[in-house]
Amino acid sequence: MQHFASDYMEGAHPLILQRLLETNMEKTPGYGSDHYCDSAKEKIRKACHCPHAEIHFLTGGTQTNATVIKALLRTYEGVLAPETGHISVHEAGAIEAGGHKVLTLPQEAGKISARSVEEYISRFNQDGNRAHMVKPGLVYISHPTEYGSLYSKAELEALSAVCKKYAIPLFLDGARLGYGLMAKASDVTLETIAKHCDVFYIGGTKVGALFGEAVVITRPHLIDNFFTIIKQQGALLAKGRLLGLQFDTLFSDNLYFDIAKHAIDMAEKLKQGLAAKGYRFYFQSPTNQQFIIVDNEKLEQLAQTVSFSFWETLDEQHTVIRFATSWATRESDVDQLLALL
Amino acid sequence: MQHFASDYMEGAHPLILQRLLETNMEKTPGYGSDHYCDSAKEKIRKACHCPHAEIHFLTGGTQTNATVIKALLRTYEGVLAPETGHISVHEAGAIEAGGHKVLTLPQEAGKISARSVEEYISRFNQDGNRAHMVKPGLVYISHPTEYGSLYSKAELEALSAVCKKYAIPLFLDGARLGYGLMAKASDVTLETIAKHCDVFYIGGTKVGALFGEAVVITRPHLIDNFFTIIKQQGALLAKGRLLGLQFDTLFSDNLYFDIAKHAIDMAEKLKQGLAAKGYRFYFQSPTNQQFIIVDNEKLEQLAQTVSFSFWETLDEQHTVIRFATSWATRESDVDQLLALL
Amino acid sequence: MQHFASDYMEGAHPLILQRLLETNMEKTPGYGSDHYCDSAKEKIRKACHCPHAEIHFLTGGTQTNATVIKALLRTYEGVLAPETGHISVHEAGAIEAGGHKVLTLPQEAGKISARSVEEYISRFNQDGNRAHMVKPGLVYISHPTEYGSLYSKAELEALSAVCKKYAIPLFLDGARLGYGLMAKASDVTLETIAKHCDVFYIGGTKVGALFGEAVVITRPHLIDNFFTIIKQQGALLAKGRLLGLQFDTLFSDNLYFDIAKHAIDMAEKLKQGLAAKGYRFYFQSPTNQQFIIVDNEKLEQLAQTVSFSFWETLDEQHTVIRFATSWATRESDVDQLLALL
Amino acid sequence: MQHFASDYMEGAHPLILQRLLETNMEKTPGYGSDHYCDSAKEKIRKACHCPHAEIHFLTGGTQTNATVIKALLRTYEGVLAPETGHISVHEAGAIEAGGHKVLTLPQEAGKISARSVEEYISRFNQDGNRAHMVKPGLVYISHPTEYGSLYSKAELEALSAVCKKYAIPLFLDGARLGYGLMAKASDVTLETIAKHCDVFYIGGTKVGALFGEAVVITRPHLIDNFFTIIKQQGALLAKGRLLGLQFDTLFSDNLYFDIAKHAIDMAEKLKQGLAAKGYRFYFQSPTNQQFIIVDNEKLEQLAQTVSFSFWETLDEQHTVIRFATSWATRESDVDQLLALL
Repeated sequence: MQHFASDYMEGAHPLILQRLLETNMEKTPGYGSDHYCDSAKEKIRKACHCPHAEIHFLTGGTQTNATVIKALLRTYEGVLAPETGHISVHEAGAIEAGGHKVLTLPQEAGKISARSVEEYISRFNQDGNRAHMVKPGLVYISHPTEYGSLYSKAELEALSAVCKKYAIPLFLDGARLGYGLMAKASDVTLETIAKHCDVFYIGGTKVGALFGEAVVITRPHLIDNFFTIIKQQGALLAKGRLLGLQFDTLFSDNLYFDIAKHAIDMAEKLKQGLAAKGYRFYFQSPTNQQFIIVDNEKLEQLAQTVSFSFWETLDEQHTVIRFATSWATRESDVDQLLALL
Repeated sequence: MQHFASDYMEGAHPLILQRLLETNMEKTPGYGSDHYCDSAKEKIRKACHCPHAEIHFLTGGTQTNATVIKALLRTYEGVLAPETGHISVHEAGAIEAGGHKVLTLPQEAGKISARSVEEYISRFNQDGNRAHMVKPGLVYISHPTEYGSLYSKAELEALSAVCKKYAIPLFLDGARLGYGLMAKASDVTLETIAKHCDVFYIGGTKVGALFGEAVVITRPHLIDNFFTIIKQQGALLAKGRLLGLQFDTLFSDNLYFDIAKHAIDMAEKLKQGLAAKGYRFYFQSPTNQQFIIVDNEKLEQLAQTVSFSFWETLDEQHTVIRFATSWATRESDVDQLLALL
Repeated sequence: MQHFASDYMEGAHPLILQRLLETNMEKTPGYGSDHYCDSAKEKIRKACHCPHAEIHFLTGGTQTNATVIKALLRTYEGVLAPETGHISVHEAGAIEAGGHKVLTLPQEAGKISARSVEEYISRFNQDGNRAHMVKPGLVYISHPTEYGSLYSKAELEALSAVCKKYAIPLFLDGARLGYGLMAKASDVTLETIAKHCDVFYIGGTKVGALFGEAVVITRPHLIDNFFTIIKQQGALLAKGRLLGLQFDTLFSDNLYFDIAKHAIDMAEKLKQGLAAKGYRFYFQSPTNQQFIIVDNEKLEQLAQTVSFSFWETLDEQHTVIRFATSWATRESDVDQLLALL
Repeated sequence: MQHFASDYMEGAHPLILQRLLETNMEKTPGYGSDHYCDSAKEKIRKACHCPHAEIHFLTGGTQTNATVIKALLRTYEGVLAPETGHISVHEAGAIEAGGHKVLTLPQEAGKISARSVEEYISRFNQDGNRAHMVKPGLVYISHPTEYGSLYSKAELEALSAVCKKYAIPLFLDGARLGYGLMAKASDVTLETIAKHCDVFYIGGTKVGALFGEAVVITRPHLIDNFFTIIKQQGALLAKGRLLGLQFDTLFSDNLYFDIAKHAIDMAEKLKQGLAAKGYRFYFQSPTNQQFIIVDNEKLEQLAQTVSFSFWETLDEQHTVIRFATSWATRESDVDQLLALL
């Protein structure tokens, strides 16, 4: 049996566990006011080339999205997002529970364009009923997207330009950011992201950590009292150093990037193997998630020996499934998976 | 200048004002515990053929939608609605402010079908991620819809059957209910609606009252403590008798139906006049709202002498506009409007 | 039977009904964009000596409190209020439903002092755990209070000074404002209130109108997009002119003040009569609400011939009850009440 | 320097880290559907003598309180809690952000009595305005309380009886439950708690785990769709097995109870040492938190060599401070602390 169902099936990179062990009995103050958090923040600021960034560590993705979005919006505003965005579909209504509408935009491979954002805002501004409607107050994107696709540098620049034009912050969900940054063909670096996004987060849960997302607020004073908002959302970890320690480790000696690159290498190997075996791709993903189209007959047989994610029903005979590699995938795992397919 | 911009441009039917005058200095207890409310409720129960219905009076449409939907949903549920539904587009995010997602369905002339509701729920039930998604907990429709269209009796029965099958309440927004009930070709009566909907409201604001919507809960005990929920939503009128008195008047001597029929007659006359003058209809509306397609050049000229509602941009040269008749429209108004067109 | 249970038992001042009648068939645009609203706003601005005030009309008190407070607070803030304040006790959790904590302060006769506000904020600022606590972001007072008491000019100045010192808005609930302004011994005028409060409202429901509260925002640009917030709260009246017309009438020819003065005169007469008959006052109220202490034995007997409000249980033998006069109370009503007591 | 500021200053019990290491590269499905969670749940059910309990693992205390309380209350209900309760004071308004009022009761040493609960509910039920007030829908207590105090078995029985009488669930916050269960004089066992509470949680964060709280729902079907509610609150850990593994370890071989007992032993030793040195106790705490009264002059001097928690200002000359022992406190730490004092 080979498991490729998701990129959060293992624990953490061994170096992280080692540091947890080494520091276990040390006494530190709580809630992120410890020196590990300070050190991790400093390393992330450097990696982002953003010396004045404000950084906070949260535990998971839905939590981070809900907390940041609630902090950025006023009561009468909503968030623009792709109709397939994680906040639109798979967060159990967390954004609405915070009081805000998710205003959906058409997507292509999980991405939205600067043009569609501008069209939405223009239509809103022209509408005679706009005072009766939800004002778009934020743009949410993910990179990589739910479909594993990536924005180009030019696309991010364009989105950022529209957001600046209308004085609306741009927020990037980077739950799988490492895998996006290390994708072969991408021209987007951490610096690019820090330059164009007002807020983004660097995903740890899916890229080497036990858990944890590092929120980077690139524009100082954008959010008042964010610490208290985190507490109110139930998102403040008592032993905050656990987050600091993990990100400090990931941002030492290029670890975050190296392990993300490994996942990409494994995904590329898998992609070639799948192509060689004649599998059809639903979508040419440049990152660690690979989507293939499978006959429904074959599906059940496959499920006996391989764990994957059901993605969507394509038609009556075919289903789209996902394989995900991760920092933890071994080359032999990929070989065995290909042998089983 | 002729005004056909909406159906809430005048005050109230003269009989209502007369009764307000007659009873003005009477002292009654507050919050709807007066005898006018009791009497109005009894008349509405009879008109609905629903002797056990629980009835509450609220002030306006968005308020009523937000209050009823919040009362009917559990924290993890959302409301299914047409993508053009009033709650989806024109209530400034009132449903989301109450913590709930509006789950949109494709619409035709503002209507959704039982099939699309069932498909949505089936897909939701099959989805491996459904525990991460918002559960559909209510179906919202309006009758007439925002486009002036009407459900047939068979369509309502089908919607009700799907709702019953999945144990989800059906809620009907009747802000313009009178105009729907009196439309020439409709086979839907108040009794039909009371039979098939778990909750609905009878619009007063647009049909003869100064303001007011009568919420009818046809299934006893469906909502606990609705009075307190109304108070919490800021929707409880101190001098509740004003609502009771208005509905008591509207439901005496067939007034609600007679004045609604008058609006329909005026709309039919307008429709014929427009057709005779060669205007193109965007949609064949059987109710008091008529939508026509106008050259943009003509639009500005028209706006000099007639007030109408901008509806939507059809293409670069054409715009859809709306004329609305009401209980207060005089035949001479229609004649003059047609003369001006 | 004499009814003194509350000050919202009758309809509206006859001049208001007369104008509703006169203008009934006039066609105006909706949602408060009509000329009656414009005229009323201008008259209120003049009465307040506050030419740049932004004014909005809402329907009722709880609705107004919930809407204003939600608009003024950020997500991490709460509202300071007397523990007996209407928002603390009798609004069914409307403030909390909007996501905010009511931070209660000790009260005397329904009032809070500048000192207690300052002490609360100082303690909050000193507390090592303040980032884990709700930040006081607004001060709420009512004038008259729930107990009929009044702030003096000096007290309002002091409250305003503390609020300015800590950059926190001061919001005054004036549901019974007229009765406060016309109380014999008060040195507080509408101008005083407009000078010291950032937002306040002038109650219509209890002072001559069918319904309606006029929100006065004395500091321009304090609240962004308040119109949309009102819509989102379900507090936007379709036929907004009904509110404009009522306030335009109340603020013509000193009507609001004259009818409020009448209620005070009636309350003074009642007070003297009660004192002469040996009734004990729970509290020396200078406004239209009078609170007396009654033997429980007498209570039931009284309830046969007089309607009053139960206020609170004083001890095992005694109960506090309230009589309220209003703009509509006739001198003969007071005479008869006193005869019945 | 000795650190006694809180009971969450270290990492986790070494056995937990060891198991994290051993299982690190194992692949498991996410969100708590792994075999470690299953095993932990089974062990907790046994320890509670509650074979049908539904168990969920969350990350932290505020998160757990907010999620459980939102799940248990209807929109018109609030939660009764001691005025010093964690949810009342130190959760940044998390309960109100979920839409619910915290209804505070007077406390003694952090505890509320069955009588005060009953009195509150009785007064509420008698109040003529109760439909305008927040209905008490849940009782929240903590054991140990914020002051380290404990309910007796009889007190818990009485609270449970009142809750049953009024059909209101009883929810116990057990963030420090282990220390309460192991206190010398307590007659309350885990079985007692499971018997009398409808929902409670077993704190891991402060008792040996890196993080984690185990929610025990003792009454099956009390909460519908709790998994989705957890997701919506952002409280669902992707690698849920981290929680399962920690609780599985804590509930193997009596570990949870043994390490809690150790903390109590250390607290007793500290208590005796403090008494011998003439320190005055603010309160006779039977658990791991000890509160002493210190001269303000001495306070600063103390702060040079010892880390403690500021608790509250007693008077102008004196301050209450807290020392907390934990599962990780070594006897030599206590000796050194006493030497420093």
